[in-house]
This record gives sequence, structure tokens and C-alpha cells, in this order.
Amino acid sequence: MKKIAVYPGSFDPATYGHLDIITRSAKIFDKLLVAVISNPNKKPLFSISERVKILKDTVKDAALKNVSVEAFDGLLVNFMKKKNAKIIIRGLRAVSDFEYEFQMALTNRKLYTEIETVFLTPAEKWTYISSTLVKEIASLKGNVQCFVPPVVEVMLKNKKILTD
Amino acid sequence: MKKIAVYPGSFDPATYGHLDIITRSAKIFDKLLVAVISNPNKKPLFSISERVKILKDTVKDAALKNVSVEAFDGLLVNFMKKKNAKIIIRGLRAVSDFEYEFQMALTNRKLYTEIETVFLTPAEKWTYISSTLVKEIASLKGNVQCFVPPVVEVMLKNKKILTD
Amino acid sequence: MKKIAVYPGSFDPATYGHLDIITRSAKIFDKLLVAVISNPNKKPLFSISERVKILKDTVKDAALKNVSVEAFDGLLVNFMKKKNAKIIIRGLRAVSDFEYEFQMALTNRKLYTEIETVFLTPAEKWTYISSTLVKEIASLKGNVQCFVPPVVEVMLKNKKILTD
Amino acid sequence: MKKIAVYPGSFDPATYGHLDIITRSAKIFDKLLVAVISNPNKKPLFSISERVKILKDTVKDAALKNVSVEAFDGLLVNFMKKKNAKIIIRGLRAVSDFEYEFQMALTNRKLYTEIETVFLTPAEKWTYISSTLVKEIASLKGNVQCFVPPVVEVMLKNKKILTD
Amino acid sequence: MKKIAVYPGSFDPATYGHLDIITRSAKIFDKLLVAVISNPNKKPLFSISERVKILKDTVKDAALKNVSVEAFDGLLVNFMKKKNAKIIIRGLRAVSDFEYEFQMALTNRKLYTEIETVFLTPAEKWTYISSTLVKEIASLKGNVQCFVPPVVEVMLKNKKILTD
Amino acid sequence: MKKIAVYPGSFDPATYGHLDIITRSAKIFDKLLVAVISNPNKKPLFSISERVKILKDTVKDAALKNVSVEAFDGLLVNFMKKKNAKIIIRGLRAVSDFEYEFQMALTNRKLYTEIETVFLTPAEKWTYISSTLVKEIASLKGNVQCFVPPVVEVMLKNKKILTD
Repeated sequence: MKKIAVYPGSFDPATYGHLDIITRSAKIFDKLLVAVISNPNKKPLFSISERVKILKDTVKDAALKNVSVEAFDGLLVNFMKKKNAKIIIRGLRAVSDFEYEFQMALTNRKLYTEIETVFLTPAEKWTYISSTLVKEIASLKGNVQCFVPPVVEVMLKNKKILTD
Repeated sequence: MKKIAVYPGSFDPATYGHLDIITRSAKIFDKLLVAVISNPNKKPLFSISERVKILKDTVKDAALKNVSVEAFDGLLVNFMKKKNAKIIIRGLRAVSDFEYEFQMALTNRKLYTEIETVFLTPAEKWTYISSTLVKEIASLKGNVQCFVPPVVEVMLKNKKILTD
Repeated sequence: MKKIAVYPGSFDPATYGHLDIITRSAKIFDKLLVAVISNPNKKPLFSISERVKILKDTVKDAALKNVSVEAFDGLLVNFMKKKNAKIIIRGLRAVSDFEYEFQMALTNRKLYTEIETVFLTPAEKWTYISSTLVKEIASLKGNVQCFVPPVVEVMLKNKKILTD
Repeated sequence: MKKIAVYPGSFDPATYGHLDIITRSAKIFDKLLVAVISNPNKKPLFSISERVKILKDTVKDAALKNVSVEAFDGLLVNFMKKKNAKIIIRGLRAVSDFEYEFQMALTNRKLYTEIETVFLTPAEKWTYISSTLVKEIASLKGNVQCFVPPVVEVMLKNKKILTD
Repeated sequence: MKKIAVYPGSFDPATYGHLDIITRSAKIFDKLLVAVISNPNKKPLFSISERVKILKDTVKDAALKNVSVEAFDGLLVNFMKKKNAKIIIRGLRAVSDFEYEFQMALTNRKLYTEIETVFLTPAEKWTYISSTLVKEIASLKGNVQCFVPPVVEVMLKNKKILTD
Repeated sequence: MKKIAVYPGSFDPATYGHLDIITRSAKIFDKLLVAVISNPNKKPLFSISERVKILKDTVKDAALKNVSVEAFDGLLVNFMKKKNAKIIIRGLRAVSDFEYEFQMALTNRKLYTEIETVFLTPAEKWTYISSTLVKEIASLKGNVQCFVPPVVEVMLKNKKILTD
């Protein structure tokens, strides 16, 4: 039976760091489902449909055949039950990531015993970038082309960003 | 002379992790005063009277005779002077806790030299839960019964929670 | 050629910890430029002109001849290019500082290859204070005179602070 | 094609924490190879054949059909090439683990580009145990039955342990 | 009933940091027993009788009436049972301390359910000193008088120290 | 007056990570003195003269005119007084580095008030390498050419390394 792994996140917006984790996961697991959290309460810069579209286009450009992209809301474990998936993928870059991710991994396992969270490390050149950092640089008119795919760079220029 | 220890916090809402620290502290110190910070600026989900009531009921259910619960506002050290208490109790779960707590312990000691902060560790099964996590799960309609007393579970269902 | 170092920050408000880093940097580098980030989106408690004035007065009181103070907005690396400066000064107090600062140092280097970030540690008595902590204590009517210069203490009393 | 994952370690001796990671990995990957590092220079308490035998017996008792155990020496990546395996499994328990493991993951990737390290978290009840701790307790005549399989408990009693 | 707290350690040698924790604990608990681990396998610089004597003299000089000093070997929890003590005191200085101490606290609780570990923070001026550091400085003929009581300073001068 | 910075270390052996810090420091400070600690007690793999020679050759190859290399023993601060230097350079790669380095920086400042420790971050591609790791890989016959200068690679092959 095919193993389905789910890579959940806000992806607001997707960075080369996310792409790196997606590419690595796609090699390890039979099928990878990138699950974009809608959470409208967090007031993301990009709408859920924009975030899904960016990922779909990028995955297509990278010719990753076994990767699909989908939005979801509600509890991650419920989404995973519906998809018949039991493996969560998360990227680990720094110690502060680790503590939060550890907490989430143990919580998700409590909410659904069969769930397993699997952590991957991106290439060292992506260990320090994050969506928040990218938005901050863009809001200050800085150049983000080393951090995000071209489509994201263009979209960031067209957004009026107020950092907070 | 009886030693009074104060366990301050937002308790928004109280979790089994808090209960664990309360139970352990009640064994170590003659008298434990759970001090609930009102901080209306933080916009807590539960009102100060709800938070105090939850703790009072839970402490009563656990038959912890030497524990009392009280609300306070203003500076913690001023509250402690009024109560003639010199020991602050704090739970330590993770490295990130540690840094913040260390900073607060040194600050409180600066503001009132005689104050001592004492750290306890909860049972390992509670090391990853927090009030924030519980509210997030509840807001996504997840089951929080392993994390909070029944009264809190019911109250969470009756609140309309918007995570942020 | 004189080496210019830039010490960027929000300084909302300046604390004795910041002063400590300024004094140390002024000994190591020929010229130190304290660069105050305006970021009006962050809703600082003190206006940019108040924050610059506090620093100018404090630097003058400390008789630090090779230190100047200036406001800036936009990307730090652009400000540095304009000033012909290639050294960023940052204070390191704790592990959590370290990760964020590390991320910023690598990002700034990516945005402008010739930039170097140099970290200094304050005296141990300042390792636990921060502007946020000072504002929190002041908002609760606590005494902040051990943490900030007298001018800041007075200004904090005159502000109506709502912590959040 | 079957995905082979390798779980390398000293396993001196195997603990319930290791067993937990083995059981979880065996569910995620088609085939799991537990690779016991001989490193005679580290002067392990248990010989390489003892360590392999303990793991083989324990895996058999747990009826984990897709798990095999083997000793190796030399570079891990060379062993993996020989086995045609590209996935390394490692357990993550604490922040200090994380830094070392991160370093090893990036190093192994440098030595053999196609290698991917995958991190799993044990159940929270095993997050604080380690082989070193178990040996220390045993050397002080403490009871280690909650930490290791019965066979290891017996073998520890028969060893004359000098902690260092 | 009087509460007995035990402060265990190698104290090889005692520093002003240890003294600070002893003084604070003596204020919080009715009776404090400083328990010096003999562990001859660790090859301490000072013999167990030297280490006990240093502490006894220092505690006497500080006029701490409710503090006693004793050597022990074997498992800490067994020593505590014999002494009818249920509270362990440990000092927390840094994040790396925290992880090890957390592990030990959970282990001791597992070995003896009624045991509680209580963490205290020393004054910030002692947060960076340790016995290892003191021995290293002394071995290089550095001045350790700001770190250790006079008696230890003298004894260190008379030892031929080889750092390792 | 020229500012002399000292970059102390064991350099057993020098890696590309060390070279990176040397190159960056040489741009920031007028004169850089790489100070190689002899510490014969630590039983380094390379003799003090080998370690100094490697650094001298590498610095020469890199055409770093303002960098010199020297061995020293005893306390670093004493060496610095003799050299009339007041700035220590240290590289920061990870959180665990940070805590040790922070401790050393505060200690050295205590031993000699005028000393200032300045931390630099290497390029992200060097953040995970260390001399220890390089020796471990070499001892297992792994390829270390991405981590160390060619001269070190050759010398490592000629050493019979036993890891411990």
C-alpha cells in the first residue's frame, strides 16, 4: 500500500526552503500532499487560493509528479484521517523550531495515536530563511529573489505590505 | 513561621499541567496561593472571575487543603509583599520556558531582593501542553479532554474562539 | 581609513543594556553610528524623535565622542551603503537572541555581501533586561530606575502605557 | 522499489527509547536496518556481538518482521551505499540532541548527496532516558527495569560497571 | 514536620555559585543537607574528605545554622530515603544545565515517586562560573579569588593541576 | 593606534570554518593575531608546531597580509596583555557554542576588565563543521577535502587516528 505523507503549513508565501523540504520528501515517500492551512484568523498576506496556486505552479515547474497541493481548515489530524494519511512532514531549521515542532508532534500523536511526525532538514543555505523574514524584506523594498520562486517575487511587489 | 508560596499565572484556562504543579507545590510548601493575573490588556479568553472560579473548583475537587486562589493586578512583587510571601513557584517545561522564566526570576529579585523563584517540573506527560495549545485545539473543534479538567472542556465548547 | 560600525535597533526605549553595548563598541571601533529604526508599523511607545533624542542625550552625558545617533527607515543594508559602513553591531544576551540574530546576520550578508555582523555581550548584570520588560514593569507602576537612564524613567511615567 | 531505512547507533545498551524509535520506523518504512556501530575506540560496556544480539532478540520478541540488525564499522555513508539505502533514521529527544544531529545530518549529506536523515520523536515517557543514564543508574545498583528490556537488565547486573 | 531539602553535587571544589544556592535554599527550607557525591571513578581533583571539609568550613563561616554537609555514594534517591528527605535542590544557570537537570529530575522521580526536584537560580554574577572553569583557570595560574572562598583558593594553589 | 584582535583556539586542525573567521576578522581589524593554544594535556592530534605551521601556510596562501600566527600557553588574558591586545575574536556557529563562549567571554572580562570578546558568524556552509568532526571522518577513512585545506587533508592521511 502506498504511503501518503502530508506536509502542512501556512506557506505565506512558499519559499525556497519549503521547496527544498517538498523535493526531499517527494523522494522518500510514495505520495506527498502539501496541505495549506487556511486560518483566516491569522490574516495571511496571501489568500488561501493564492498560496495554493503558488505551490501548485512551483511543484509543476519542478516536475514533482507525486506531489499534490490542497487547502484545509480545522484540525490537521482530521484532515489526515480523511486523506487516509498517517505521516506528517515538518522541516527543522533551528532550536526554536525544534521545541515548537516537538510540542506539535506530541500533541498530534495524542489527538490521533497512529500519526507519526517525521522531521527533515533543508540544505544549510535555507536554514535561516522563513516566510516572515521574506515578507519583512519585501516590505522594506529589499530584493527577495534568492529566497523565493520568481512568481512569489512578482506577487510580493504587487502587494502593499505593512509589517507588524 | 509558615512559608507561603505564590504560583502566579494567567491560567487562561488552567490545564492539567498547572494542576500538576499546584499539587507538587502543595506538598513542598506549607501554604500555596495561586495568583491569577487579571491583565485585561492581554484580552484573555476567560474573564478573571471565570479563571479564578475554575481554579477554585479544581483545587477543591483535588482536596488540596493548603491551596487558595486569588486574582491580582499590578506588579507581582507588590502583591507578594501584601501577602507576606517570598517564594514564587513556576513550572519549567522546555528550554524556551527557561529563558523567559530566568529573565523574570532575576527581574523580580531586582525589584524585591528577598524574593526567591523556585522552579518545578511537571510530569513528562504534561511537558508539551499549554493554555495556548489547548485554546487552539478547541477553536478547531478538537478534543481537549486529555489536557484540561472537565469543567474547562465544557466552558471551551461554549466560547466562540477565534485563534490568532 | 576609519572603520564605521552601525548599531541598529528600535531602542523603544534605550536601556542600560543598550548603553553598555554602545560604550563597548565605541572602544573597539573608530566611529559608532547608533541607527534607530523608525518602523511606524510596530507602533512603538516612544516616537522616533523621542527615541533618537533619548539616545543623543545619553551618549552626550556619557561623553562618548565617537558616537552619533540617527533615525533610518527601509532596509538596514541600504542605510549602511549610504553611510559607507560595513560593520553591524548587535548585543547577545541569551540563546533566543542568538537564533534570531544569527538569522538576521546571514540574511544581511546575503543582501549585501560585504556586510559583517559583530556580536558583543553586555555585562552580566544587563543580560536579562530588555525594552519590552522595562515597559511592562513601568505599565504596572514598578520602579525601573535600575534598568534605564533617569530621562527614560521620567518619560515612562508620563506615558500612559497599555501592555499587550 | 522498496525503501530501506537505516537506524544507526551505539546501542550500548539498547533502551526502551531505542525500541520505541525502531517500532515507529518499522511502520513508516518498508524495511528497517538497525546498524550497530562497533567503534572499539569508544570502549563500549557491551561488546559489539552482545549489542547486536540484544537488539536481534528484542526485535524478534516485538515481532517486527521488516526489521533486521547488523554491525558495521567505518563511515556510515559507505555502509549505506553497500546496502543501497538512502534514509537515515534518528531519534530526537532534546535540544542538545538536535544540534548534534543536525550537524551529523548535514555532514552525511555532504559526504553522500543522496542521503536523507529523517528524525522521529519517541513517546514523551522516553524523552529523558539514554544509554549513558541507564549505565550510570545500574553502576549505582539502581533499578533500571522501567528503562530497558529484561535481557538488558540481567546483563547489566552481571557487568562490573565503573562509571566515568 | 520539618521539611528537609538535599543539595547534591560533586563540589569539586565548591564555588561562590554553590554558596549562593546554599544560602538561598537555607532561607526557603527548614533544613538543608549538602550531599557530596564521592564518585571516585570521576577522579575528582579534591578528595571526598577535602570537599566535605571545604563545605563545612564555608557553611560555618556563613553562619548558616540549618545547613549540614555529608558525603554519600550510591544512588541519590537511596541516600534521600535514608535521610527521610523528599526535596532535591539544584541550581540552574544556563540552557545546557536545564536539559541535563530536567533529565535527572524526571529520572529521580521515576526511581522514587515522592521525590521532587526544585530549581533555584543564583545571582546573575554567578551564572557563568563552574567548578570546571575554576580548575581550568587555576591550572593556568590565573586568579580565582572572585570565584571561590579563600580556603579553596589556597588549596588550588597547592594542587598540581593538569587540565584535560 | 592600531587595533589588534586575537583569535585564540586549538586549531587541531584548522578547518575552512576557521579560515572563514580569519578572513572576515582580517577585514574588520587592523591586525589579527591567530593564537594557537598548546595545551599538551588535551593530547591534540597535531603537535603545536604542526598546528602553527598549517595556519601560517594557509594564511600565506590566502594572502592575508595583516594576519600573524603564534603559539601560546598559560592564560589567554596574560598572553593578550603581553601583546597589548584587547579584542578576542570567536566564531559562533550554534546554540551550544553560544553558551560556552558566553561563559568564556564573561570570565575573561572578569580576569582582565579591558578585554572585549567579539563574535562573528561563518558562512552558513561552514556552520556545521568542526575540528572534532573532521578528525572523526578522517579516522573512518572518509573524504575531508570539502572541510579542510589540502595540506591538512594530506597530514590527516599520514596520521594514525584513533577516535575516542
